[in-house]
Amino acid sequence: MASSMFFTHCHYYSSPSSFACRLHRQVGPTPLRFFSPAPSRVSPVAAMATESSAKVIDGKSVAKQVRDEITAEVSRMREATGVVPGLAVILVGDRKDSATYVRNKKKACESVGINSLEANLPEDSTEEEVLNYISGYNNDPSVHGILVQLPLPSHMNEQNVLNAVRIEKDVDGFHPLNIGRLAMRGRDPLFVPCTPKGCIELLHRYSVTIKGKRAVVIGRSNIVGMPAALLLQREDATVSIVHSRTSNPEEITRQADIIISAVGQPNMVRGSWIKPGAVIIDVGINPVEDPNSPRGYKLVGDVCFEEAVKVASAVTPVPGGVGPMTIAMLLQNTLISAKRVHSFE
Amino acid sequence: MASSMFFTHCHYYSSPSSFACRLHRQVGPTPLRFFSPAPSRVSPVAAMATESSAKVIDGKSVAKQVRDEITAEVSRMREATGVVPGLAVILVGDRKDSATYVRNKKKACESVGINSLEANLPEDSTEEEVLNYISGYNNDPSVHGILVQLPLPSHMNEQNVLNAVRIEKDVDGFHPLNIGRLAMRGRDPLFVPCTPKGCIELLHRYSVTIKGKRAVVIGRSNIVGMPAALLLQREDATVSIVHSRTSNPEEITRQADIIISAVGQPNMVRGSWIKPGAVIIDVGINPVEDPNSPRGYKLVGDVCFEEAVKVASAVTPVPGGVGPMTIAMLLQNTLISAKRVHSFE
Repeated sequence: MASSMFFTHCHYYSSPSSFACRLHRQVGPTPLRFFSPAPSRVSPVAAMATESSAKVIDGKSVAKQVRDEITAEVSRMREATGVVPGLAVILVGDRKDSATYVRNKKKACESVGINSLEANLPEDSTEEEVLNYISGYNNDPSVHGILVQLPLPSHMNEQNVLNAVRIEKDVDGFHPLNIGRLAMRGRDPLFVPCTPKGCIELLHRYSVTIKGKRAVVIGRSNIVGMPAALLLQREDATVSIVHSRTSNPEEITRQADIIISAVGQPNMVRGSWIKPGAVIIDVGINPVEDPNSPRGYKLVGDVCFEEAVKVASAVTPVPGGVGPMTIAMLLQNTLISAKRVHSFE
Repeated sequence: MASSMFFTHCHYYSSPSSFACRLHRQVGPTPLRFFSPAPSRVSPVAAMATESSAKVIDGKSVAKQVRDEITAEVSRMREATGVVPGLAVILVGDRKDSATYVRNKKKACESVGINSLEANLPEDSTEEEVLNYISGYNNDPSVHGILVQLPLPSHMNEQNVLNAVRIEKDVDGFHPLNIGRLAMRGRDPLFVPCTPKGCIELLHRYSVTIKGKRAVVIGRSNIVGMPAALLLQREDATVSIVHSRTSNPEEITRQADIIISAVGQPNMVRGSWIKPGAVIIDVGINPVEDPNSPRGYKLVGDVCFEEAVKVASAVTPVPGGVGPMTIAMLLQNTLISAKRVHSFE
C-alpha cells in the first residue's frame, strides 16, 4: 500500500501496494512527511457539510473538547495532589519534520498544563547516550510519559531503544506487552496507541454504534490498522482487515458499517467502495500535486472525500479529521499515566 | 457461544451464545470437559473420505508425522549436545479431567524423548506454594517449558500464577508479550499457542494456500480464535472474526476460503454456511447425547461434518482433526525452547 503518511505523532510507515485508485498524482517519489494541520489550512467543515448528505466528523472540534477536558483534569489533579503530569520527548538529530512534531507536542502540552521535557541529542549520538536519557526519564518521578521521536538515526537499533522505555511510561502504547493486552479478552493495556484511540474516540463522540456492526480496517500497520482492529473488536464489532494482499478489497469494504482506512493511498477508497450510510474514518494524509496551492500540493486522505460524502452517513475530512485527535490522545495518555501512578481518580 | 470445549491441553473457555443450530442436544447443562481422543475412538477417517467429495484432513496422521520429526530432532540434539528438552507440568488438586490431561502430556513427552517433570500439589495449596514451584522450574536449566494445568482452585489468582512463568519457558504462548509479538508485523513471538498453531500446521501440511485468501475465524477466545486470526493474518490472509455479537455470521462464513471454528457449539456451522470448495478446520469438540454409545454421548465439532463434507474441499473430523495436533505442538514448542536456549539449530 505505497508509502503512507498518517497523523501519527512520531512514526512513519510504508508497505508495498497492490491496489490503487489515484485521482491525483502523489507529490514526488516519496510523500512529504510532516504534521501540520494548522488551523488556517483546515477545510471549512461546516460549509462542506451543507453540500452533501454525510455528516462531516469534525476532529478539530472534538480534539479541542478533549483538550479542554484534559486541561480541567490536570488542574484538578494539581490542586488536589500538587502533581503535574509530565511528558518527556527525546529527539535525536536535526530533521526538520521531527523538530516540528516535537515543537507541536510541546505546545500542546503547554496548552493543557502538562509539563514538557525535551532532550535534543545530536545526530551522531551513540545508542548508549539515548538509552541513558531514557533511563533518566524512566527513573524521574516527574515524568509520566516518554516519547522517542522516530525515525532514529540509522546507526541505532530502534527496537532496542523503544524497548528501553518503561512500560508504565510508554504513552505511545506500542510496547508488545500493551498490544498483547489490547488483543486479549479480560486484559487491559496500560495505554492505547494514540491514533487508533483517536479514531474510536471520534466514533464515540459522534454516538456511532460499534457493537454488533461490521467494521473494516484498511491497512494492518502496527501503529494504526492492527490496533484499530483490536479496539473495534473489543467493542464487539465484527472486524475484517483488508491489506495489500487482499483481492477485491472493495467487495469487503462495501459490507462495512464502519470503515477505518490507514494505508496512505490518496483517494483509494471510492464512493463505490462504501455501503450507503456507512461511517468513514480516514487516517491517511497524503500530499498530492495542486498547482492552485502556493505550496504546490494539497493534503488528501485515503478516501475520496467528494464521493464519500454522497454515500456515507458520516466521514472525517483530511485535514481536520483524525489528525488533531492524535496529539489530544497523547496528552490523555500522559494524564492517565500520572493519575495511575498517583492513584488519583 | 455456549460452553465450549476444545482440544486444548489445559484450558477451558466459555462465553454466552447468541446463535446456535443444534442437531443434537448437548449433554447436561454444562458440557463434559475432558481430553480423550483415545486411538480406539477415532473415527475411521479413510472410510469417511470415500463417501464424500471433501478431503478429510487427518490430524491424527499429521500429528504422528510431527511427533516423529520431533523424536528425530530430540535425538539429534541429545547426541550433539547432551541436552534433553524438559517439560514441567504443575497440577493443583485432583480433578480427574486435569489428571488425564497431565497423564497424556507425560506420555506424549516420553514417546518423543522429552523429559517430563510433574508437580502434584493438593487442592488446598496456597498460591505462594504454587509460585514457589514455578520459581523452581524457572530457575531449573533442565526445564525448557512450564505448563500450569488449568483450572486452578478458585482461591488462586490464575493471572498471577500464569504471569509468574518465565516468558522463555511459556510454551503455552499465552503471555501477553507473546500475543503482542504475534500481533505485530516485524516481531516474532517466542512461542505460538498450541491449538491455533496446530490449525495452521494442518493447512500447511495439506498445502492449503493461505496468502491472499479470505479466512473467517469463528470465536475470539484468547486461547484459539484470537491467536488463530493473528496467525492467518501473518500469512497474508484477509481475516474476519465472527463472534457471539455478529449478526448473520453465515453471510460472512460463506465468503471464506478458509474457516477455523472454535466456539464449542455442536454442529453450528451448517453446509449452507460454507462456500463450495472451502477448507474447514474445526476446533470445537462437543459431547452430545448418543443412546447408541456405551458412554451415552459422542463427540462432535462446531461444524456439521455430514453437511460440510458435501460442500467443502477439505475438512477436519472431530475427533481426529485438530485435537491430536495440540499436544504435538506443545512438544514442538518445548523442543524449540530447548534449541533456543542452547543455540542448537
